[in-house]
Amino acid sequence: MSETASATPLSAADVALFNKWWHAANYLSIAQIYLLANPLLREPLKLEHTKPRLLGHWGTTPGLNFLYLHLNRIIREQDRSILFVAGPGHGAPGVVASTYLEGTYSEYFPAVTQDADGLARLVKQFSFPGGIPSHAAPTTPGSINEGGELGYSLSHSYGAVFDNPDLIVACVVGDGESETGPLATSWHSNKFLDPKTDGAVLPILHLNGYKIANPTILARISPEELLSLFRGYGYDPIVVEGDDPDTMHQKMAVAMDTAFAAISKIQKAARENNDTTRPMWPMIIMRTPKGWTCPKTVDGLRTEGYWRAHQVPITDLTKPEHLKLLDTWLHSYKPEELFDENGTLMPEIAALAPKGDRRMSANPHANGGLLRRDLRLPDVTEYAVAVSSPGHELGEATRVLGSWLRDVMKENLSSRNFRVLAPDENNSNRLNAVLDVTNRAWNAETFDYDDHLAVNGHVMEILSEHTCQGWLEGYLLTGRHGFMSCYEAFIHIVDSMVNQHAKWIKQADEVSWRAPIASLNYLLTSHVWRQDHNGFSHQDPGFIDHVLNKKAKTVRVYLPPDANTLLCTAKTCLESRDRVNVIVAGKQPEPQWLDMDSAIAHCAKGIGIWEWASNDKGGEPDVVMACAGDVPTMETLAAVQLLNKHLPDLKIRVINVVDLLTLESKSQHPDGLEDYVFDSLFTTDKPVIFAFHGYPALIHKLIYKRTNCRNFHVHGYREEGSTTTPFDMTVRNHLDRFHLVQNVIRRVPGLANKAAYANQAIADKLVEHTRYVAQYGKDMPEIENWRWS
Amino acid sequence: MSETASATPLSAADVALFNKWWHAANYLSIAQIYLLANPLLREPLKLEHTKPRLLGHWGTTPGLNFLYLHLNRIIREQDRSILFVAGPGHGAPGVVASTYLEGTYSEYFPAVTQDADGLARLVKQFSFPGGIPSHAAPTTPGSINEGGELGYSLSHSYGAVFDNPDLIVACVVGDGESETGPLATSWHSNKFLDPKTDGAVLPILHLNGYKIANPTILARISPEELLSLFRGYGYDPIVVEGDDPDTMHQKMAVAMDTAFAAISKIQKAARENNDTTRPMWPMIIMRTPKGWTCPKTVDGLRTEGYWRAHQVPITDLTKPEHLKLLDTWLHSYKPEELFDENGTLMPEIAALAPKGDRRMSANPHANGGLLRRDLRLPDVTEYAVAVSSPGHELGEATRVLGSWLRDVMKENLSSRNFRVLAPDENNSNRLNAVLDVTNRAWNAETFDYDDHLAVNGHVMEILSEHTCQGWLEGYLLTGRHGFMSCYEAFIHIVDSMVNQHAKWIKQADEVSWRAPIASLNYLLTSHVWRQDHNGFSHQDPGFIDHVLNKKAKTVRVYLPPDANTLLCTAKTCLESRDRVNVIVAGKQPEPQWLDMDSAIAHCAKGIGIWEWASNDKGGEPDVVMACAGDVPTMETLAAVQLLNKHLPDLKIRVINVVDLLTLESKSQHPDGLEDYVFDSLFTTDKPVIFAFHGYPALIHKLIYKRTNCRNFHVHGYREEGSTTTPFDMTVRNHLDRFHLVQNVIRRVPGLANKAAYANQAIADKLVEHTRYVAQYGKDMPEIENWRWS
Ligand SMILES: Cc1ncc(C[n+]2csc(CCOP(=O)(O)OP(=O)(O)O)c2C)c(N)n1
Ligand SMILES: Cc1ncc(C[n+]2csc(CCOP(=O)(O)OP(=O)(O)O)c2C)c(N)n1
Ligand SMILES: [Mg+2]
Ligand SMILES: [Mg+2]
Repeated sequence: MSETASATPLSAADVALFNKWWHAANYLSIAQIYLLANPLLREPLKLEHTKPRLLGHWGTTPGLNFLYLHLNRIIREQDRSILFVAGPGHGAPGVVASTYLEGTYSEYFPAVTQDADGLARLVKQFSFPGGIPSHAAPTTPGSINEGGELGYSLSHSYGAVFDNPDLIVACVVGDGESETGPLATSWHSNKFLDPKTDGAVLPILHLNGYKIANPTILARISPEELLSLFRGYGYDPIVVEGDDPDTMHQKMAVAMDTAFAAISKIQKAARENNDTTRPMWPMIIMRTPKGWTCPKTVDGLRTEGYWRAHQVPITDLTKPEHLKLLDTWLHSYKPEELFDENGTLMPEIAALAPKGDRRMSANPHANGGLLRRDLRLPDVTEYAVAVSSPGHELGEATRVLGSWLRDVMKENLSSRNFRVLAPDENNSNRLNAVLDVTNRAWNAETFDYDDHLAVNGHVMEILSEHTCQGWLEGYLLTGRHGFMSCYEAFIHIVDSMVNQHAKWIKQADEVSWRAPIASLNYLLTSHVWRQDHNGFSHQDPGFIDHVLNKKAKTVRVYLPPDANTLLCTAKTCLESRDRVNVIVAGKQPEPQWLDMDSAIAHCAKGIGIWEWASNDKGGEPDVVMACAGDVPTMETLAAVQLLNKHLPDLKIRVINVVDLLTLESKSQHPDGLEDYVFDSLFTTDKPVIFAFHGYPALIHKLIYKRTNCRNFHVHGYREEGSTTTPFDMTVRNHLDRFHLVQNVIRRVPGLANKAAYANQAIADKLVEHTRYVAQYGKDMPEIENWRWS
Repeated sequence: MSETASATPLSAADVALFNKWWHAANYLSIAQIYLLANPLLREPLKLEHTKPRLLGHWGTTPGLNFLYLHLNRIIREQDRSILFVAGPGHGAPGVVASTYLEGTYSEYFPAVTQDADGLARLVKQFSFPGGIPSHAAPTTPGSINEGGELGYSLSHSYGAVFDNPDLIVACVVGDGESETGPLATSWHSNKFLDPKTDGAVLPILHLNGYKIANPTILARISPEELLSLFRGYGYDPIVVEGDDPDTMHQKMAVAMDTAFAAISKIQKAARENNDTTRPMWPMIIMRTPKGWTCPKTVDGLRTEGYWRAHQVPITDLTKPEHLKLLDTWLHSYKPEELFDENGTLMPEIAALAPKGDRRMSANPHANGGLLRRDLRLPDVTEYAVAVSSPGHELGEATRVLGSWLRDVMKENLSSRNFRVLAPDENNSNRLNAVLDVTNRAWNAETFDYDDHLAVNGHVMEILSEHTCQGWLEGYLLTGRHGFMSCYEAFIHIVDSMVNQHAKWIKQADEVSWRAPIASLNYLLTSHVWRQDHNGFSHQDPGFIDHVLNKKAKTVRVYLPPDANTLLCTAKTCLESRDRVNVIVAGKQPEPQWLDMDSAIAHCAKGIGIWEWASNDKGGEPDVVMACAGDVPTMETLAAVQLLNKHLPDLKIRVINVVDLLTLESKSQHPDGLEDYVFDSLFTTDKPVIFAFHGYPALIHKLIYKRTNCRNFHVHGYREEGSTTTPFDMTVRNHLDRFHLVQNVIRRVPGLANKAAYANQAIADKLVEHTRYVAQYGKDMPEIENWRWS
């Protein structure tokens, strides 16, 4: 496809009406940016009618309004379920205006009525203290994409249509946004779409030529390159180019008709003839001036069709000529023809909106929490690893989890509301059991020797953490459930996306009509302590530091020490809502500590004394040995065993932490222990040797309000590492049993003298270790074969 | 272009020799993965010759080796300066083998000699404790891309060739790597390249069909789509496809000849005829089997040409048939024909390597620190903002910095070794003065109304934080300097890249032959407290938390409170080496506190008492008011003023922190204050009300070892925000002057009773504020016009 031909599907009356709707949307957009009062300009515009701070983005807005209107035509004519995603979410004035015009806004926000009074509220509240934010935030009806941080519109859109066969997402992608990495790769999402059981995404490239202060790449390459690029991505672009509104309405109508007909044809072939071969999906390239219909110049400087139109085209209204220009601009849309004397939209214009739930702003998928159904979760006890006595058996925690996830998948397969995602790491992370009941989604060439690839698979693997994350967010926001696994170090790739999602959850929670959605669940594995094929670049446990900066209500961090605790934790996460849950667990064979009953009891508390490893019962401990994380737990127990041997009189209490936030004060986190409980566990004055999975300072940050905080001595990752043996990693970072013992000897008052021989024996062990691994390339047998006893 | 024709530029003898080199490189790669001893198989292979832990990645390696060899031919024949970037850096066994074959490895690591003994060391050390890591790390000669975290090879490569007209980077991009967002957008870097004053990148897509456990997208779309995609990106692809080595040598030779001829032609047109129009740059698509030349099957399972070849194709060598298969595989390369009896590479094979610095592993650009020349930095005092008395004048800190940066640019323009980067935010961040002396780099269509776009500009703007970051890293690693500005919240987009770069710096520092490089310098602005057009999504001060997890030696965080301190700080950063420097400063008009002399003195210490704002001199303070960051500083001073008014007897000490790491203990960070200095500043027992730019817990994390830590009460960002007024942002997060005063009243022993009236006056102010902003949409005049006095 290329330029739309010169067909004219719209009558002159249609065009006139379409212009009116567009004028109304544009008018209200500008009014939101500029006006504090006098929203219909029934009085002559005065400075005091304008806002003291002019905030907002006009540049993308007329384009969004134009598209919204044309999508509404399709919905009306074809009775489609369409969601509108505004990649440039800063075009919220437009999105809000459109949803107001179709009435939804007043339904959600009853004070913003369909009259002059409501209009006054509408325009004042925008970007105003106590009002609404300037982006397509959770407050915006119909939005699932805030769009403040650019780049995620397309992956969100694909996430939304997976398993929603009747849904079409019209996804407007900014041409600036297209330059971001996440967006640039997300075009390939079409290779993961099943035209039969999934819906469709109609990407619309908003080629307005500019970003904040620069032209965009896509606007400045040749048309051949542009088309070639999108064909290479697997799309069939329909170009709609121009700036004359009447002509453009006709062109856009043709383009929309063509695009939706193509989608229908593809879906029909898939659904009626079972032809799910990946087609070239349609897309629209809309090339229009940035800030379309604003003044051509301001102060003699090019504005319409230039980057100067990006935000507020006319500023400093204390200049009379500016105020006048604004007045002329506003009047150019003829508000008096758009709203009746009550300030209500003229009925013939209002009739352009679809009805009820068909309005994009009222589409139930945009408030996914309403559609969310709980998952059917198999009883975790049936997947339990048998633990005859603590530390006796070995188990691969994530593989055990995999078998449970397989059955979660199986139980919910018919509901098609659960997906498992990973950036090409599902097998590596040992969750491959899920492939027993479903496949990897794949709609590209296949060969007979391929492994579990199928068009309708429910395991999603693309080597893009961003795309996995974006898909999952889109899937969750439309009311479904998911589970993502990732190498611990590389989850930082999506730090910023997680921020945005956590912010979305926090804000949505404050919006009365938004229902809770399923949590964003991560399993981080291939973690810092177990790298095998990789080294230093794969070692970073800092994602938990990152998420803890978000609202306490939203985030949880779990460090299950073995398979059964991992099972319990995973279940908790899949049952929870409106959270970001981070589970960190290793994939290698490791000692199993708790049988299922103990695991359930331990995870329910989130933290607890391991009585079978402690010897201080009935008295006070000399030292508390605390641990969080699988490897730190093993090293702690090994240290305890050494201490029992060398210093049998030492009273030791062992505490294991699964729910990291129990450490924080109750006033700071809902999971935080009450101070008296914390004090009773950790004492108020005894040394605490804490073996921690992550960066040590994080523990200090969590406990700074606790009575005993100064006696915590935390061992964790010190940013030392390479490709080496597992135990050597702990030694390099002083997390190993030997360094833990040394620190106990150092910190327990009066122990140093008594323990000089023990200390020396331990120091010798460290030398022995270093020599051994350098010679043999593996850990000493006493380390490899160590068992708790 | 498409498939290479059937030309045969190589003689039969060439082909035979090429195969030998390739065999030698492949052989040594496998030997590194598998062998502990017996590197030349002069004894029959036994289990004890093999490593107990088999670590490494074979899959990508034969392809890398093949390309390395063919690039060497070009260098020998055309005397080119070429750098080799291995996108799949996990192919380090291959890169290391190739550099060993060309002798460089032994020059850098004298123990690894060119004989049997050296070979034994070479093979043993790989992925071995105390040896070398498994990726193309700083220990790898010729590497500027670790490649552990995939996605940055191409942006690194472009960064390396900017301003290096004679350099060509041959950048091997994994087909899996291509799926990452950062890689997918970095193809567009060609729109920022000047064929005249920059070098060239030859991208080579390593289309081996698979990633860890999945096929790759690019291998499973039609050839038309594949070519279309890369033409759309602006490249002219040359396809080299097959698996028969002899034929493939001919094809690759043709492809290389074609590609380098195309590069020469483009550069000639630009350099001799001044034709710098963006050409279609050549690229090579190499489609070969993954794990090429390894066993076709292992245990009956498809291995060569499949994802099973990704890491170690044959494992568990205790199975005799596995050991045998390995033996056969190793012998298939005929080591006896490759190395003489001393274990030295046969001279006719060795002759295939280029000489001296022309060896890619010895190319000086890969050890950029050696080429780095200090910048000429204008005297900051000449750019100073006049400050008649503290807080009297307003200034826009980043704009002032912009004028200094302009002259840094000017002074170094002839050296072409300084670039300023931003993701379409250079103007928004108010650094536009640099455009007075240079332009934005832009090699795509332009119009006469464009603003400072030029092919050879030194300001780099693409709407991709990832690409900016990757370019800058490549530029720094090859010995140049740079400065990147970014919205504070969105710098999280590159969290993971920063991790990797910081890790590179740390490791490179431990490699004796790597010279220090210029620091990675960030200005973070449009920060959390000043959002204007944006809202909650743009509010996240957590990047400083993120970088502080990296090695203390490497990271610095500066929070200059005004323009003059910003100037001093920026100078320090541009002079430093081997660091990640983060400066956070606002771009809005704000009070200026320090004249240049005071600023220099203050920044040199990094922290200090502001005497003019304190009233405790000669005695003990009742309270310490500390602040870090521009907005917190202003709020603190406003609070002090209120306290002086309401509670004139209160003794207040004001401390400002510019260098955040002064707060940390000396034992933890080189900039940390000695405890006695810290205690003297902050006292050992007085309440400290700390107004902090970022998340409050960060301060607690930094000071947990300090005597007075329990008396620190930190105000900072609480993850509350929206599009609202500047002062309202501080109120919502309790960072404002009123909340600070309230906390002083609460925390100073005995003050509460005395200050009840003051307290109530303050509470009333907060109510008044909230009502005012909701009505007028701007801050109260007493806030807007507040001045220190
Ligand atoms: C990831 C990211 N980087 C930078 C910004 C700052 N920013 C806001 S709008 C914008 C330009 C967007 O251009 P485009 O996508 O073309 O949108 P439009 O022209 O439709 O406004 C930029 C760079 C951002 N919002 N997100
Ligand atoms: C960003 C990132 N995500 C995930 C990984 C884990 N990983 C290591 S290698 C690999 C596959 C790489 O495939 P490709 O780029 O095709 O390399 P090759 O086939 O040449 O080995 C993956 C997913 C990684 N290294 N980086
Ligand atoms: Mg644009
Ligand atoms: Mg590959």
